[in-house]
Amino acid sequence: MSGAEASPAQVVMERCDMLAACTDGPEGITRPFASAAMRQAHELVSGWMREAGMSVRRDHVGNLRGLYEGAGAPTLVLGSHLDSVRNAGRYDGPLGVVVAIAAVERLHLARRRLPFGIELLAFADEEGLRFGTTYLGSRALAGTLEPHDLQRRDAEGITVADAVRSFGGDPARIEEDRWTGPTPLGYVEVHIEQGPVLEARGLPVGVVSAIAGQNRFSISFQGEPGHAGTVPMDGRRDALVVAAMFVVAVEQEARARQGLVATVGKLEVSPGAANVIPGRVDLSLDVRHPDDSARLEACRRMLADAHGLAENRGVLVEVRPLSENAAVPCAPRLVSLLTRAVEDCGQAAIQLPSGAGHDAVVMSSLSDIGMLFVRCKGGVSHHPAESAAVEDVAVAIDVLGRFLELIAEK
Amino acid sequence: MSGAEASPAQVVMERCDMLAACTDGPEGITRPFASAAMRQAHELVSGWMREAGMSVRRDHVGNLRGLYEGAGAPTLVLGSHLDSVRNAGRYDGPLGVVVAIAAVERLHLARRRLPFGIELLAFADEEGLRFGTTYLGSRALAGTLEPHDLQRRDAEGITVADAVRSFGGDPARIEEDRWTGPTPLGYVEVHIEQGPVLEARGLPVGVVSAIAGQNRFSISFQGEPGHAGTVPMDGRRDALVVAAMFVVAVEQEARARQGLVATVGKLEVSPGAANVIPGRVDLSLDVRHPDDSARLEACRRMLADAHGLAENRGVLVEVRPLSENAAVPCAPRLVSLLTRAVEDCGQAAIQLPSGAGHDAVVMSSLSDIGMLFVRCKGGVSHHPAESAAVEDVAVAIDVLGRFLELIAEK
Repeated sequence: MSGAEASPAQVVMERCDMLAACTDGPEGITRPFASAAMRQAHELVSGWMREAGMSVRRDHVGNLRGLYEGAGAPTLVLGSHLDSVRNAGRYDGPLGVVVAIAAVERLHLARRRLPFGIELLAFADEEGLRFGTTYLGSRALAGTLEPHDLQRRDAEGITVADAVRSFGGDPARIEEDRWTGPTPLGYVEVHIEQGPVLEARGLPVGVVSAIAGQNRFSISFQGEPGHAGTVPMDGRRDALVVAAMFVVAVEQEARARQGLVATVGKLEVSPGAANVIPGRVDLSLDVRHPDDSARLEACRRMLADAHGLAENRGVLVEVRPLSENAAVPCAPRLVSLLTRAVEDCGQAAIQLPSGAGHDAVVMSSLSDIGMLFVRCKGGVSHHPAESAAVEDVAVAIDVLGRFLELIAEK
Repeated sequence: MSGAEASPAQVVMERCDMLAACTDGPEGITRPFASAAMRQAHELVSGWMREAGMSVRRDHVGNLRGLYEGAGAPTLVLGSHLDSVRNAGRYDGPLGVVVAIAAVERLHLARRRLPFGIELLAFADEEGLRFGTTYLGSRALAGTLEPHDLQRRDAEGITVADAVRSFGGDPARIEEDRWTGPTPLGYVEVHIEQGPVLEARGLPVGVVSAIAGQNRFSISFQGEPGHAGTVPMDGRRDALVVAAMFVVAVEQEARARQGLVATVGKLEVSPGAANVIPGRVDLSLDVRHPDDSARLEACRRMLADAHGLAENRGVLVEVRPLSENAAVPCAPRLVSLLTRAVEDCGQAAIQLPSGAGHDAVVMSSLSDIGMLFVRCKGGVSHHPAESAAVEDVAVAIDVLGRFLELIAEK
């Protein structure tokens, strides 16, 4: 498909299309961990890695690992994931892998060796579609997989261990996937933004400053159900009215603070009949900020709102914390080099936080991390409409290439 | 069960208990239209009617009709329903029937004839549990049943016509159930309040001023779904935030206007995941007021709120009117006589609207209507916890008896 006249960016776009055809099921893109679709993807990607001058191996958990030897001992790690959500887009994950291949291929075509090796990691599981757990691939590398992770079962009752085995790995030897060499020079991941900031600013790429920390809560408001026709307004303890005030308060808090995002994405009303005053509402609250203290302060204020609003109306409130993740800052050194690389490519450089999690979160336990975001249309991801422009991909390849030069100069 | 020493109110309470035992299914109270449970109830009620000096017949649709002859031609109609919702309480419906029997029995024991006959209607279907349609009994009387009503099917595929036939009626002759005599002196219904007003005021009974008119709408807000972590607050078109503002606005409108009740009882969020910004919300709006122009003005304001809030946030709104019922005022003459009867019984008389519908709504096409509410605990109805006090029932019997005297005096 890629003729002699195709630009590296066109090749990347074609490769994303080819990977999109590696899917389980007849329609859309669904490429779970250790699936037949993933096996197809590995055949393609390992071929491209070899063309780019890399030696290729698959580790036990199922990461595809390409090594471009350097003139010296240290290693820079590049990476992204090859698995997908159900009915996914074609860029979330694969783009980072094929852009990295393009940057390495450029070195290879120039017969250039850097003073460090480049290990390119095509991770086996970031989205967690099949087993409901995320980061199986990068966690194997970081050595943070737990024995019980291998016992998780998919919808058909197959365990992670069995899936690993049928994919050609040995679950008993996943420990060997762990990074044991010297601390890498850094881990750098290219990814579509999955948000609208770059599009709004008219920029092809942006440098990630930090991956936001996140709190998730499940919150219930318990009022009193009643007949919608016979209970006067001042005699009601309507759980939905209090929940609605809370939703409005959460949005106000978040809008008032730079960098804060807060979302009530799930809200269920009981009994949920048109003629019955809502007795109970269960909702989710998701709060993210790249700065941990700002996030914790926002959570504190929002939960105080929940209690205050409920108390005011004689409604009970119950808050269950579901998860809490600290923010992961990108290394200032890598942020600065990526920023310079963007500028050297003639683009305005902005730094923006990532609200979504990435393999870089896990890799931060092994190494400094840095990320480069590529503009995506409408900020849409996890959807067939996910879209990236070939011109932006060209910039991303150039920026990553320039970054490799800059880090080599240091 | 009712010994010589039992008061009429105690008898009424015992009879409500006996009717509660007429149920389909082993637990709770579930007494649908034309069911075995209803047949049992008819055996009991027809016996009590006869003891009270009434002649009894069952009409084709399945209403039980007791007639206490008067000295003159006109007829006063008393009534309530014997069917129930699923897992019902024991007073919603039956109380009105047995209180009316108690008032007639008092005349009978005193060998007293009034200058008018009393026809007591124990309606066959007010709740609509079995066929999803309400007022089958009173609509047969009013002549407003449609042929397609008889073709409706229950969960087992049995039509109303078949149910009528198996209950002993002739569906082809339901037309004969229609009221053809001179306009009744009035239709008076005793019913539990199903709301908290009388309890809050410390009163055993209250006189209904009107049955509230009602509008129902289905309203959809269509925004844009997105990643809860990556879309900044000012780039969102969150359908739930707009819906929440609307819920709050509806409640504020309703609290600000005397007699108005408005309820969002149903609210569904799509896609409804903790990490996805809500793209769409579908909700119900129920608005009631005893005065039609106040209700229509409130609807106008609330729908304007929906449009204004949505427009402000770039969210689309769609409003589908589901139903509209005009208010049914109680006849000033009957309200005034019931009020005097309450006062004559030594009680403070208040007038209050009914937010719920009743057979009186249908009967208003045949006759002036009046209703007497009896206090119920916590305003709870349609629930096994539904509760009325024997002392309050005693007042209701006295008031209804006094009302009969007052109307006879006129």
